[in-house]
Amino acid sequence: MAATVTISSGATWQEVAADRQKHRDVTLSLLDPPLPPIEDIPLNTIPLARKFLTADEIKITETLVEDLVPQLAKGELSSVAVTKAFLRRAGLAQKATNCITELLPQPALERAAYLDAYLTGHKKPIGPLHGLPISVKEHIGMKGLDWNGGFVFWVGKVAKDDAHILSILWGAGCVFYVRSTQPQSLMHLETSSNLYGVTTNPFNTTLTAGGSSGGEGALVGFRGSCLGIGTDIGGSIRSPAANNAGVYGMKPTSGRLPMRGLTATQEGEEQIVPTIGPLSTSLEGCKLFIKTIIDAKPWYEEPTLLPFPWKEEEFFKGKKLKVGVLWDDGVVKPHPPITRALKQVVDKLKGKPNIEIVEWKPYKHDLAWELIANLYFSDGGADEAGAINSSGEPWRPLTKHILTDNPHCQPHSISSMWAATLKRDAYRAEYASLWNSTATFVGPNGDLEGMVDVILSPVGPGAAPKIDTAKWWGYTSQWNLLDYPALVFPVDRVDVVNDGEKVEYESRNEKDAFNWGLWEGHGAEGWEGAPVCLQLVGRRYEDEKVIQALEILKKEAGFPFVEYI
Amino acid sequence: MAATVTISSGATWQEVAADRQKHRDVTLSLLDPPLPPIEDIPLNTIPLARKFLTADEIKITETLVEDLVPQLAKGELSSVAVTKAFLRRAGLAQKATNCITELLPQPALERAAYLDAYLTGHKKPIGPLHGLPISVKEHIGMKGLDWNGGFVFWVGKVAKDDAHILSILWGAGCVFYVRSTQPQSLMHLETSSNLYGVTTNPFNTTLTAGGSSGGEGALVGFRGSCLGIGTDIGGSIRSPAANNAGVYGMKPTSGRLPMRGLTATQEGEEQIVPTIGPLSTSLEGCKLFIKTIIDAKPWYEEPTLLPFPWKEEEFFKGKKLKVGVLWDDGVVKPHPPITRALKQVVDKLKGKPNIEIVEWKPYKHDLAWELIANLYFSDGGADEAGAINSSGEPWRPLTKHILTDNPHCQPHSISSMWAATLKRDAYRAEYASLWNSTATFVGPNGDLEGMVDVILSPVGPGAAPKIDTAKWWGYTSQWNLLDYPALVFPVDRVDVVNDGEKVEYESRNEKDAFNWGLWEGHGAEGWEGAPVCLQLVGRRYEDEKVIQALEILKKEAGFPFVEYI
Repeated sequence: MAATVTISSGATWQEVAADRQKHRDVTLSLLDPPLPPIEDIPLNTIPLARKFLTADEIKITETLVEDLVPQLAKGELSSVAVTKAFLRRAGLAQKATNCITELLPQPALERAAYLDAYLTGHKKPIGPLHGLPISVKEHIGMKGLDWNGGFVFWVGKVAKDDAHILSILWGAGCVFYVRSTQPQSLMHLETSSNLYGVTTNPFNTTLTAGGSSGGEGALVGFRGSCLGIGTDIGGSIRSPAANNAGVYGMKPTSGRLPMRGLTATQEGEEQIVPTIGPLSTSLEGCKLFIKTIIDAKPWYEEPTLLPFPWKEEEFFKGKKLKVGVLWDDGVVKPHPPITRALKQVVDKLKGKPNIEIVEWKPYKHDLAWELIANLYFSDGGADEAGAINSSGEPWRPLTKHILTDNPHCQPHSISSMWAATLKRDAYRAEYASLWNSTATFVGPNGDLEGMVDVILSPVGPGAAPKIDTAKWWGYTSQWNLLDYPALVFPVDRVDVVNDGEKVEYESRNEKDAFNWGLWEGHGAEGWEGAPVCLQLVGRRYEDEKVIQALEILKKEAGFPFVEYI
Repeated sequence: MAATVTISSGATWQEVAADRQKHRDVTLSLLDPPLPPIEDIPLNTIPLARKFLTADEIKITETLVEDLVPQLAKGELSSVAVTKAFLRRAGLAQKATNCITELLPQPALERAAYLDAYLTGHKKPIGPLHGLPISVKEHIGMKGLDWNGGFVFWVGKVAKDDAHILSILWGAGCVFYVRSTQPQSLMHLETSSNLYGVTTNPFNTTLTAGGSSGGEGALVGFRGSCLGIGTDIGGSIRSPAANNAGVYGMKPTSGRLPMRGLTATQEGEEQIVPTIGPLSTSLEGCKLFIKTIIDAKPWYEEPTLLPFPWKEEEFFKGKKLKVGVLWDDGVVKPHPPITRALKQVVDKLKGKPNIEIVEWKPYKHDLAWELIANLYFSDGGADEAGAINSSGEPWRPLTKHILTDNPHCQPHSISSMWAATLKRDAYRAEYASLWNSTATFVGPNGDLEGMVDVILSPVGPGAAPKIDTAKWWGYTSQWNLLDYPALVFPVDRVDVVNDGEKVEYESRNEKDAFNWGLWEGHGAEGWEGAPVCLQLVGRRYEDEKVIQALEILKKEAGFPFVEYI
């Protein structure tokens, strides 16, 4: 339903925001049975589910995608039951973390009932994701629904059609039941907007859920969704995946998954390309999502996509999986829990006969940041600023951080943008050379062989940041600049006792000092309950290989090392 | 060897040009045995070869790539003998058509001798193109050699390394023996520069050899090369292939062949991407060229490239090849010989059990031209103008045509360029929909099937144009805008008697009137000897499919219908 309280109808930004929040609350009130009012939100909100949901709802919503899908396909679980459970848990997630923009109980339950009837009538599922509820970040357009992209000024804009990716998922049998929050400008690694406020971390509400797909992060972290769709141009899928416990999130290479039907500023910009991808409570969930979409051959409809079928090849048959470990990007030193988690994983993998571990030295990650922070806004941020200022809404702190306080955000002329593009390509070529240089022998057909297969790296310079402090994007934006696929996975939690031991530290630069100051200022106890995740990165277009590599590493190292729920 | 007479050394543009021509002539004078002076250049220059070359030289240079390669690999022909023959015929091509910037007899013969010795010593070829001489358009950098890209001001610039594609071809065993001409700005469909003058058509010297890879076109047409490398952003491989008899030329999809190490203006521009590709006296020559390069996995070194291996799949096994015929782009009506050739081919194919012929209606080719003519020069042509004006060299007529007389060439702001990019993408999506709409049934896995496989189209609105009249790019630039692979192949010649019959014509617009006026003004006899070629076009990234389709069509229709040499 299109919003009627809008800037163009003469409302103030505050009135628009209040109306959007009211609309959201109305959609929550349609839950049946309704959720009770919740007086106090605890630091760790996860126990709320045990308190307010039925045992069946808990069981369903904590089932992984790979277990839900066959049960739905066989009719052992009805789509209506599954959808109802996720609707109620998503509603609860909203109360706990402020992560959604609207619930869609009525269309979702109608769709679920249709799918249940289809299965009964046809004795077969409608598609590979029959009956599965999927959560969707708001700026991914849904036909007939408001499409504000996080800007107050855009409230009232309505998507004419479902985004291409949603059409495919619809064809595969999905149910869309909830839309999730995003930050002002979509350019934060947190989720804070004037429309909906701040989305917090379900595992520790003093922390951010990450962003810009932070609504998805909190929702999947809270198990209000088992599979959600986010977007990523600098870490926006991976930061929320990393900040929320037990969440896998993948940013594929650009050009593999459909992007038509998303709204954002700077449309038509091609120097740094956003990507769309899954957040899920399981690796298999991410894989099934990507494979289902690629199997639908989206390139016929969207000719910017590459006609690469999903690769079924076994990449590591008869060979070692060679992992390069990036301990530190050389710009901002990771907090102790991150380094400990990396060490834990490396220790478990060392000595495995099918794994080889080598060091991966950072290569000019400071330059990489300069390049991408400059190319993000080749109009100097004018389009973003216009979208914000047109409503009079205030600038959120992290919008200022990336636009006005970002020294690399400068308006380009056409020719200076060409020059900046060449610098990007030069850096990409240097990084490719670096990767090629890890080869150890020449294979039978003359190819270089024995190269590093994947890089194992932090996802950020710490666990989920305190609100409004997620300022160093380098650990994620690095792979956007290079357009490498990157997959985030859960490893551990902050260990308040052991991670709190004093670590030797010497300040490298302002960014580094800021980050370390956060750690020292709050102490390990400031991160109680926060998950610790890592990132696996592959070369451009090696999406399938990265997934396979993680399957192997997960099996060999046995992470996550803790239970989260 | 770097030029020393340059603008920066204080020379005038005329002095620089004279020095470059002197240098070229010096390299020609190194031929052993030397070529005699040639007093009169006939209208059709091809007979000059019979007059001035030995029978062996003629035989070698008229052998196709697929026959030369195995003979070279087995040592039945020495690379020195083959290189000498092509050097001399290239020298003669220069005298006939003014198509080269320099011969490279000394390094080429040294390389050939090395390869011959290698074969003797190792009893096996060094690579898949062992000993094969290849001609190269000048702006494709060769280590240590001048690299002017057709601009007087750039004379004296020297390539630090061989272009990536040349390194691969070198690894495959090629011999580089000649560099060929290109026009001022590289943005003509002819070849006319102040450095070297006009490159003419070997089959009729009143006509252009095409451009911008016109040096290659004339050289391969004259059989001074059997395989050359050109580049194409609007027709620059295909126009010279079409204008010269018996020449195949392919513009692959972007991102498949290596582009590193080329010089041109507007480097860093990404809205319309140039491509590199082969011109050859055989289809097999084009295929072998592309396959050899892709087999070398160039994406490891050049990460802008897509890691698509060469597809060996049989695309038309057990199914009909469905050809859509584009008779006319609806903007500029083709001259009678082109329409006749299309009809001839269609008539031969109709009724073949493995071929289906359907009409392909043009879809807004006028808009397509507006879009691409605008995106070519998003700085309004400032970079081009700077490169020309810095030396004081005059603007060639076709440079004016595409820059100053092009109403779509306007300087963009960053945001207007984004808007133009979105228009490009919208057009691409509409064209993809159009293609999808040719499907006739739903296959067993739910895919649309029975779609058109390839489009058969003119390459231009006439046979090789009279000098300085190649103004309508639409028949080739259409496929650059869409980034579709397109392959040009020889069909026939202008038939002075039959093509001269009066055709009904009504003017559509200025461009059309200009083109038809050329035909009526000169009459069919103005095109005596001119070849007539056609173009086969596939969907984005379906390069291998286009080649296979042409193999089938060639076999079924039996073109070319004449002998050219």
